[in-house]
Amino acid sequence: MNFESYQSAIRTLLGDQRYEHSVCVSRAAAQLARRYGADEKKAETAGILHDIMKDLPREEQRNLMDRYGIRLTEVERCAPKLWHAMLGAEYIRRELGVTDPEILQAVRYHTTGRENMTLLDKILFIADFISDDRDYPGVERMREAARNSLEEAMIAGIVFTIKDLADAKRPIHPDTIAAYNHTILQNQS
Amino acid sequence: MNFESYQSAIRTLLGDQRYEHSVCVSRAAAQLARRYGADEKKAETAGILHDIMKDLPREEQRNLMDRYGIRLTEVERCAPKLWHAMLGAEYIRRELGVTDPEILQAVRYHTTGRENMTLLDKILFIADFISDDRDYPGVERMREAARNSLEEAMIAGIVFTIKDLADAKRPIHPDTIAAYNHTILQNQS
Repeated sequence: MNFESYQSAIRTLLGDQRYEHSVCVSRAAAQLARRYGADEKKAETAGILHDIMKDLPREEQRNLMDRYGIRLTEVERCAPKLWHAMLGAEYIRRELGVTDPEILQAVRYHTTGRENMTLLDKILFIADFISDDRDYPGVERMREAARNSLEEAMIAGIVFTIKDLADAKRPIHPDTIAAYNHTILQNQS
Repeated sequence: MNFESYQSAIRTLLGDQRYEHSVCVSRAAAQLARRYGADEKKAETAGILHDIMKDLPREEQRNLMDRYGIRLTEVERCAPKLWHAMLGAEYIRRELGVTDPEILQAVRYHTTGRENMTLLDKILFIADFISDDRDYPGVERMREAARNSLEEAMIAGIVFTIKDLADAKRPIHPDTIAAYNHTILQNQS
């Protein structure tokens, strides 16, 4: 399948706003790929597909995860906002025939992050923060960080995620802390 | 050894300020124990001993940990503020003959927290935040939380710790996130 087919595939599964967001993330990911020497096509594909399952009602997400045999930890069970990423990676593999492990993993970890993120993982993670449709307080600083360095933007993005979850008293996935510590420690040494 | 001997033992190892802090934490821990039905004597002992190794120069802390066979993870190696708790628990066991596992564990985890904290673990963790010598912004809210419920104070304390570390871009121990998630999830259900 080519980019246009992926775009059609998400069009039927997402609401207008999420569809626009996906197009914006795809564009931002391609730009970051160009800037930081990653594969633009892969970045564009990961971007357009990353939220493919996000507008599916939660119960349907649970059912589909069960059908796919995706097992959840206790933290994951209590953090429904993480489901679409785990489910999305499996959905695009099974239903859209995406086989590239880099794309599958970037989609899988675009919300939590993880230890030892690949270049494409980082690009999608950051693109999701800085896409043109985003307008949260601080987005301009995030965009500037992304222009400066991938690592600076990664740290800013994970710190934002952690503080946001802690403020809301919502669970924090261990993968997010692994991503945080790994990035912090790499940039200290 | 009785309380007075522990007090003498820390007196020679700590500076004036840390000594005063330890006395205050010991008193706060005893008060919390009384309020929440824990063993007052154990709380008092854990409180007086919790920072026993904190004024030892970092290099000596490292040497003593090596001598005691305490192995550090990568995060722990890069977070020297955690050392005194790991080392402290082992020091009071070996050098002061403290054998009570509840006291040893409360000292061991008083900085990071951990999953499934005992009542005494929680009491020491919170006492360290609300002792009379503390005057950071927000301490009064923390004291009020501790009067309301142990769980409310635990959540406030861990959220404070996580946000403080994330702001400073310092490593966050996985035990702290385990404590956070465990406490959050228990209070949701």
